[in-house]
Amino acid sequence: MFIAILGFGTVGSGVMEVIEKNADRIAQNAAQEIKVKYIVDVRDFPGNPYESLIVKDFSVVENDPEVKTVVETIGGTGVAYDFTRRCLLAGKNVVTSNKELVATHGHELIEIAKQKNINYLFEASVGGGIPILRPITQCLAANKIDDVYGILNGTTNYILTEMIANGTSFDDALKAAQKMGYAEADPTADIEGHDACRKICILSALCFGRHMYPQDVPTQGITGVKAADVENASRIDCKIKLLGRAIHYGDKVAAYVAPHLVSRRNLISSVEGVMNGIVVRGNAIGDVMFYGAGAGKYPTASAVVADVIDAAKHLAARKYIGWEDGGPEYVYPAELVESRWYVRCGAEESAVKAAFGDAEFIDGAAGGQCAFVTGSMSKKAVDELAAGLDARTVLRMLD
Amino acid sequence: MFIAILGFGTVGSGVMEVIEKNADRIAQNAAQEIKVKYIVDVRDFPGNPYESLIVKDFSVVENDPEVKTVVETIGGTGVAYDFTRRCLLAGKNVVTSNKELVATHGHELIEIAKQKNINYLFEASVGGGIPILRPITQCLAANKIDDVYGILNGTTNYILTEMIANGTSFDDALKAAQKMGYAEADPTADIEGHDACRKICILSALCFGRHMYPQDVPTQGITGVKAADVENASRIDCKIKLLGRAIHYGDKVAAYVAPHLVSRRNLISSVEGVMNGIVVRGNAIGDVMFYGAGAGKYPTASAVVADVIDAAKHLAARKYIGWEDGGPEYVYPAELVESRWYVRCGAEESAVKAAFGDAEFIDGAAGGQCAFVTGSMSKKAVDELAAGLDARTVLRMLD
Repeated sequence: MFIAILGFGTVGSGVMEVIEKNADRIAQNAAQEIKVKYIVDVRDFPGNPYESLIVKDFSVVENDPEVKTVVETIGGTGVAYDFTRRCLLAGKNVVTSNKELVATHGHELIEIAKQKNINYLFEASVGGGIPILRPITQCLAANKIDDVYGILNGTTNYILTEMIANGTSFDDALKAAQKMGYAEADPTADIEGHDACRKICILSALCFGRHMYPQDVPTQGITGVKAADVENASRIDCKIKLLGRAIHYGDKVAAYVAPHLVSRRNLISSVEGVMNGIVVRGNAIGDVMFYGAGAGKYPTASAVVADVIDAAKHLAARKYIGWEDGGPEYVYPAELVESRWYVRCGAEESAVKAAFGDAEFIDGAAGGQCAFVTGSMSKKAVDELAAGLDARTVLRMLD
Repeated sequence: MFIAILGFGTVGSGVMEVIEKNADRIAQNAAQEIKVKYIVDVRDFPGNPYESLIVKDFSVVENDPEVKTVVETIGGTGVAYDFTRRCLLAGKNVVTSNKELVATHGHELIEIAKQKNINYLFEASVGGGIPILRPITQCLAANKIDDVYGILNGTTNYILTEMIANGTSFDDALKAAQKMGYAEADPTADIEGHDACRKICILSALCFGRHMYPQDVPTQGITGVKAADVENASRIDCKIKLLGRAIHYGDKVAAYVAPHLVSRRNLISSVEGVMNGIVVRGNAIGDVMFYGAGAGKYPTASAVVADVIDAAKHLAARKYIGWEDGGPEYVYPAELVESRWYVRCGAEESAVKAAFGDAEFIDGAAGGQCAFVTGSMSKKAVDELAAGLDARTVLRMLD
């Protein structure tokens, strides 16, 4: 099978290298050779070993009937969206690592693929190389899933791990992440939770069968997490982790991204550094977790090429991967999801008791007059009760 | 699609219940209804809600062309082997949770399925409900895998977790496991490592493409692990875990089962109680881990029914799951696999230094004159060097 790669950046070049390096194993698993015919990129790559494959004009790919599958690693929702639509309409399978595009236009693109009896596959869009798309759609096919959550962003997990392990401040941990190449010069998409938001949208759609749009997912990043919160969490045997989560409520789904206090007894609290972990809860299997490198050139390429192999094996028969459209009526408000809450505040314990009643205070709490854990309640309720308490940090507990 | 269930024990009845309970989701994922036509069991089940489906004569299933897929949950290599062969020869897909049968006769049964253009599927045979068969064969298809290891037996992990968390002796922890229903009255297959051995054989075949026979896998259980070893491991920030492991060496594979000292920094050390965790190392993805309930009625049924759904979707097209035969020439001797080693002994440090040179002694070691960690060497080498040191426990380090 001939393929083309759109975008010759980190992931695109990783795909090219993995296809070359593991050619034997890939050919065996795909029951045919996989050959890259074109790489589409507007830039020049003088001296690059694959220079001869590079074309600047996308229509060369679009109009070449020999190209059966196209790998899109451009990113974003601009040209990537246009090219993906055109490839699908031209009857070519598309494989992508572009989480923003899948989270925003996934349902529409899957519908086109369905009409054309081809595949739009996106294993690499969530959890980098971690197998998740097939485990959810195939291996858990006998389960009703009611909850999915995960550490979906390596940059923020690295920052939080540094803060927890070494007592580093957020600013210093971010600088360390940038120095290590784990964070971009503009880290907004990571630290404000936008990247995790796109990924939980995709996981929600896979698990619950309808599109979840990013604008319906309240998203809180980690910039408000202070060293005092990390320390207080540790005093009650918890770690702070940024989680994306989607929960099924009858015919609706609540999804959100926020930092949580996670008990050290929960395995996901041990997912450290740039690694990702995704937990899926099914009514037969219970909790399963998938763990691995959530980003990086070769892990992401590993997932992309697995999809290419699958596309090669299903040229004549579409796979059953897709979901119905979503919309406002499908969204259960995240602010109504109940959990216990961690609160750090400037008020005295007596004022807290007057407001919350059964709060569990954290001994020797740092960063204020006191810190405590509430009983189970909604975000709306905790915000109202904490309003008069000079609350500095309010975080969910993962129960 | 009509199916039959062979064996109405824990797993068989779990399969029946999951098929009933999640019928909607299963029908949607299989794109057809899954109906149980027969349950084959020699016992009587008076008053059981599925009594009307029970037949004692297997040939009823064998000779009914309407039954397209058969679930084998009998266990063992006797009648289960005979019935599986006959179902496959009759052109029926077979789905199983029977690790002993797959580990012993997997290659032969897969070959029959191949000739008949049907499927022999066994997701539930390793890691209970944890998705592993498809993740390895499909999601990691772009990787050259060189190492696979895991906590593959919940009973022994429960016993070790009790010993580590509460300082319990092996005997008391085993009694607790029996009381909780995690261990059989005759726990030999678990505590001597035979169950883990069968599972690592299957994982090795899936990852490396050739059958690994149980008799070629040196297997050491946990009966030799003492409280002193647990304590000494803890002093160097390790936990003792029973691991099955298979490593690729050129054209050969070394597989073995043994208790290991695992650093607490390795996520698998946090897999506690009856849970299982499986790590696969690929040359593009790096390490991935799959975690979940490795046994139990509903988790195992979850995996069995996922295979039934897959069989229903591939009635006309065989899946690419299988491997070549193995044999003695394929086996790399496990005793030549190098690692560091933990040794507890009755000899003085000076004698240890004379024998091993660069040993790292464990401060305040319990249960002997001293305990130490060696440099990297084979089992053969450590056994020879430790021979004169009154060695009481010799365990691999997971490096």
